[in-house]
Amino acid sequence: MSEVVFPNLAVSTVIFTLRPGEDGTSELALPLVRRIRAPYEGQWALPGGPLNANEDLAQAASRTLLATTSLQPRYLEQLYAFGQLDRSPDDRVVSIVYWALVASDEADRALNNENVQWFLADDLPELAFDHALIVDYALSRLRTKLEYSQIAHGFLGETFTLAQLREVYEAVLQKPLDPGNFRRTMESSGAVVATGERLSGTPHRPPQLYKYDTSTDLRDRGPLSRLVAPATISVLSGEKI
Amino acid sequence: MSEVVFPNLAVSTVIFTLRPGEDGTSELALPLVRRIRAPYEGQWALPGGPLNANEDLAQAASRTLLATTSLQPRYLEQLYAFGQLDRSPDDRVVSIVYWALVASDEADRALNNENVQWFLADDLPELAFDHALIVDYALSRLRTKLEYSQIAHGFLGETFTLAQLREVYEAVLQKPLDPGNFRRTMESSGAVVATGERLSGTPHRPPQLYKYDTSTDLRDRGPLSRLVAPATISVLSGEKI
Repeated sequence: MSEVVFPNLAVSTVIFTLRPGEDGTSELALPLVRRIRAPYEGQWALPGGPLNANEDLAQAASRTLLATTSLQPRYLEQLYAFGQLDRSPDDRVVSIVYWALVASDEADRALNNENVQWFLADDLPELAFDHALIVDYALSRLRTKLEYSQIAHGFLGETFTLAQLREVYEAVLQKPLDPGNFRRTMESSGAVVATGERLSGTPHRPPQLYKYDTSTDLRDRGPLSRLVAPATISVLSGEKI
Repeated sequence: MSEVVFPNLAVSTVIFTLRPGEDGTSELALPLVRRIRAPYEGQWALPGGPLNANEDLAQAASRTLLATTSLQPRYLEQLYAFGQLDRSPDDRVVSIVYWALVASDEADRALNNENVQWFLADDLPELAFDHALIVDYALSRLRTKLEYSQIAHGFLGETFTLAQLREVYEAVLQKPLDPGNFRRTMESSGAVVATGERLSGTPHRPPQLYKYDTSTDLRDRGPLSRLVAPATISVLSGEKI
């Protein structure tokens, strides 16, 4: 076979979290890194970098994410491999992209300076390479998974009120949901179970706390999820690995 | 960043079809290619090959599949990128794997000789590299997608009887399904609609022909599905691209 190519193999990561938007409601946000070299010098791009010899793909995603943003999500899921011919102006680069969710308190600990910033998902700057396409696809994967998995959990703690869960759905789907309908749908779905506890720190009639029924998680974790260290795979599933 | 690696990038494909099993019912089958060079010389492996400079990932999957098996499915979907450190004994190889379904008549036209053979999915030989893991994952993806998409269509023609559709489900899920329950579930799901036509060539009271309601296809095609030529994306969705 002629013309075999040894492309640069890069690994990038899309990390979503929820941030307070202008009107006080939660909005979906992601961190971007400003490029400090050509091509696209000065433009915003997804955190990432090249694959090193001594690491597998998920490890490369974790390492480059930590180096660029200081974020260290415990679970990364592979999104897609992007290999269009024209996606980088100079070299042939194939990017294997991971995605993850982080809770807001983790996101608060991330780097945030002139070269690393969080942007609202519906108000992104112009992105380098095909990263706008990648973010769009990660958003659609997130929205699809919200419908058939317990992925909303990744934004929340282990327990949450139904109002908190609804806020996640509203932010991800970018539309308001009727509180009563949402409550009835969630309660009848069997996806969440009441813990019997109530939110502390609220004055009177504090709302009930729920948790996901982890026996019914349908999410597809990918073929290698049992091969990685337990510490790397718990954000999206809660404590039950 | 030190130790940057330029791995061999390979593209492989898992293609499923239905074949008559020993008891006459349909069983899931896939083509394998016997390796003619080290490593794993003489062992069976998934069809595939290296990425060439002038082609994107899906084109490489199509080309290597055509070259090794003569199969040319009109739609390939990316499955996963496999990049574990130890997956190839000599070089570092990252494999981007695609998967597809082909109807039985297409499968009949594939090469079938001492170096290319169809195997039943539940009776595979020992496979080279991590290809057994890859096939397992493709099977689990197929089974998951069967539940929330119209992927069974890929094994059938545009129209089909409910008995034919049930046979697909039975083969993929590898368990018998109650015909009455299956009919009621399918009819009430709204996923299939009666065409008003009946199977020809059957003596009396021929069964009704159905087709998928393509307005409700929920399948995630991947981010690049709108970028490839229409001729390459119709097997799994029927005629409505």
